[in-house]
Amino acid sequence: MQFAKLLGTEEVEKIHDGSLEILENVGIFVCSEKAREIFAAHNCSVDTDKHIVKIPRSVVEEYRKAFVPTFTFKGRDPANDRTIPDDRPVIVTASSAPNIIDPYIGKERRATSDDIANIAFLVNELSGYDVFSISTLADDAPEGQFSLARFYPALKNCTKPIRGNTPNMEDLQKVLELGRLVAGGEAAYQERPLITHHCCPVISPLTMDVDSTEIMIYLVENELPVYGTIVPNAGLTAPMTLIGNLALGNAEFLAMGVLMQMVHPGAPLIYAALSTVADLRSGSYTPGGIETGLMLMAHSQMAQFYNVPSGGYIGLTNSHLNDAQSGYETGMNTTGAVMAGTDMLNMGGLLDSLMAFDYGKAVIDNEIALMLKRMTEFPKVDDDSMALDIITEVGPGGSFMEAAHTFKNMRQIGLLTRVANRDMRSIWELDGYPDANKRAMAETRTILENDNPAVFSADLDAKIRARFKDLVAGDAHSIR
Amino acid sequence: MQFAKLLGTEEVEKIHDGSLEILENVGIFVCSEKAREIFAAHNCSVDTDKHIVKIPRSVVEEYRKAFVPTFTFKGRDPANDRTIPDDRPVIVTASSAPNIIDPYIGKERRATSDDIANIAFLVNELSGYDVFSISTLADDAPEGQFSLARFYPALKNCTKPIRGNTPNMEDLQKVLELGRLVAGGEAAYQERPLITHHCCPVISPLTMDVDSTEIMIYLVENELPVYGTIVPNAGLTAPMTLIGNLALGNAEFLAMGVLMQMVHPGAPLIYAALSTVADLRSGSYTPGGIETGLMLMAHSQMAQFYNVPSGGYIGLTNSHLNDAQSGYETGMNTTGAVMAGTDMLNMGGLLDSLMAFDYGKAVIDNEIALMLKRMTEFPKVDDDSMALDIITEVGPGGSFMEAAHTFKNMRQIGLLTRVANRDMRSIWELDGYPDANKRAMAETRTILENDNPAVFSADLDAKIRARFKDLVAGDAHSIR
Repeated sequence: MQFAKLLGTEEVEKIHDGSLEILENVGIFVCSEKAREIFAAHNCSVDTDKHIVKIPRSVVEEYRKAFVPTFTFKGRDPANDRTIPDDRPVIVTASSAPNIIDPYIGKERRATSDDIANIAFLVNELSGYDVFSISTLADDAPEGQFSLARFYPALKNCTKPIRGNTPNMEDLQKVLELGRLVAGGEAAYQERPLITHHCCPVISPLTMDVDSTEIMIYLVENELPVYGTIVPNAGLTAPMTLIGNLALGNAEFLAMGVLMQMVHPGAPLIYAALSTVADLRSGSYTPGGIETGLMLMAHSQMAQFYNVPSGGYIGLTNSHLNDAQSGYETGMNTTGAVMAGTDMLNMGGLLDSLMAFDYGKAVIDNEIALMLKRMTEFPKVDDDSMALDIITEVGPGGSFMEAAHTFKNMRQIGLLTRVANRDMRSIWELDGYPDANKRAMAETRTILENDNPAVFSADLDAKIRARFKDLVAGDAHSIR
Repeated sequence: MQFAKLLGTEEVEKIHDGSLEILENVGIFVCSEKAREIFAAHNCSVDTDKHIVKIPRSVVEEYRKAFVPTFTFKGRDPANDRTIPDDRPVIVTASSAPNIIDPYIGKERRATSDDIANIAFLVNELSGYDVFSISTLADDAPEGQFSLARFYPALKNCTKPIRGNTPNMEDLQKVLELGRLVAGGEAAYQERPLITHHCCPVISPLTMDVDSTEIMIYLVENELPVYGTIVPNAGLTAPMTLIGNLALGNAEFLAMGVLMQMVHPGAPLIYAALSTVADLRSGSYTPGGIETGLMLMAHSQMAQFYNVPSGGYIGLTNSHLNDAQSGYETGMNTTGAVMAGTDMLNMGGLLDSLMAFDYGKAVIDNEIALMLKRMTEFPKVDDDSMALDIITEVGPGGSFMEAAHTFKNMRQIGLLTRVANRDMRSIWELDGYPDANKRAMAETRTILENDNPAVFSADLDAKIRARFKDLVAGDAHSIR
């Protein structure tokens, strides 16, 4: 497929140039001393009082030469490894919601480690998802185990690559230790790092924090997979124009990407964005707005210009339930992104502007993901696919229904949906008027009824639980 | 925007070539004697027993030279005229459903002329729609007024271009007479034909009927606007491959388009398609499937090759209510089509695989239409849009919220949604948990509460009612 482009070639260059001007003349406020030292050691000017770092355009141009064009997510099961852009679109769940819509009562509550175990199992079973980005926080985390209570149930119940973030270096070290235990040692983990770290070191406009920035530096130094997402919000943390938002966000990506290359030239990265436009009628955050899709499409074009993989949180919804809004907000923005060549989509399972995970939403988004993958798999034109012989054989006014060719192909050519209902209305009424959410919840319950074949061996689990006292149970369970 | 392309240049040519081969060697079964005579008079071979017309490739190549690249929809109010591709994407409602979801009881029932009056008023008020294609049939039509009972309430309540079909020549003549009365005479109507006719003369595979074909010929002869849609359904009326479906449908478009040019060289046309893939688990028709979007994207690329406007029924749903399925089926396929450069989308208001109109769906689809239009309006990159001066002024760590620039732009940059809820969950709960459908129905009721300023003058209405005895009332009414 040839991707849609919102920007002309010259426009892409103008944005790049505008971003260079921002980095050179406006600069970035860098809170981390370590990061300031790295910038200073690489020909940037650092204001030691105001902590403003200015990156000359020649420095950006030099270090972006080290950008590499691919990024690989590794899983506990190597068959689940995914590389972008080759395996595009790679579908990642959306993550870190504090809440969950309780599957029994349908109300929002704090999410727990048990929920994460269930979600990990569900995501492991849903073929539309490639990577499990830990969907929620764990409100029941024991003291000192904020991150372990998230990563342990995730790793235990899912052999797909796990993606997640840690709030500080102490949590990062614990999670890395857990990862090494699962991988079978430090060398094994270094070879197959089954956790991909995510962080947001840049806070718009043009600010780098301490914790996330230093976590990113540490992981890059240690050649472990990490990438960051830039999140400018036009009207609040970025100018109230789409192009200004793009130029600012692009400058922030360049600052982060260049810092990574200064630490370790050739460090893999993703140009990931969640650029939004605030709805200033009420100050609302609008991840579901069509502008979020447009911004990711434009950022993806910038990523193509830099020859790096692209991605972002996309297809998020402002809706509070699985209604039509939730469907079209997720469907439209993800389709736009796929059409523009975005390589990785963080898209599954969250309602409420990233505030709450919902099982029904996760199953519905899985079907959307399968549809998106079909969009990138349009068949080649050849004699076989054109089927002129069959057209000739059936002839004008004939029927293809009885053709052996139809029978042979009927399960491959069209996506056979599980959530989307295709019954006649009369049958649907007899079935009790189920909506998509009801069907998706039924699918969730069926999957979670089973034992999870992906769980750790008893040996490995005992080893982990011996190392980390008071660890949460981390087991999936039926929600019948 | 540079459009996405599913097919390479050589692949487009191969499809064209395959279609020529179908028309030359397999031929079309043409039921209309008049059409057969036209084909025969233009160097096609006609089998007088079997009524198979074979069109040599040289004939197709010759007559497609007469294709024109634009098509204009004219409305009662000239300000509502729309031309494709210039005004793309032109959004047309979907049409001719036998049923409606009753707005009082939420159940499906036969639609009536009163419903059409209401829908026409609603569509006139919803800014996302450009053309009103008459959404339903009228079950209360008096004898001999099957079409008048549809076109009269439509024309009376909507100054946008009206699009519709008539089942036979007798109905067509009555509708044309009505149109001429509204326009103020035959010459005025010829100058401003405020009805665009639609028909499906081709029944897949490769068959042309009598009534629709002769209606099309008549309208083309009389230089009145008409276009046809091709509707191959892979697995039933077309081969069970996407490419075979495309080659067959493309041949059918060429047969119809070439016939139009034989009748009147330069007759405007639209390459319109509703190509689907049957779900042979149950034999279901699947307008909501992702393949419907892929097929329209591919057909639109063929239209670009022929340099004619493209369009089609798209964003239809198999769902029976305004749930997530309805949202993502409509959202994804319309977004795909817009990204591929489809000029005209027949998309609003129908549930149930085209079986039922729903007010909530029409209002939701209007918001989707407004989002689609935003997707084609990505701003140009220039100093003004890049806002480097504002970025410099606010600086690292600052806030854009207070900037005069933000205040000036806040109502233009992001689409201010009416259906999509952006409130916090707590506020939404206090509001009684409304879903998108509930908000859309509230919007419908508010609009229909008003008097319709678009209705005919009393004089004109009296003239029409004097001419057609027993005509339905055709007045919109509140649905509180």
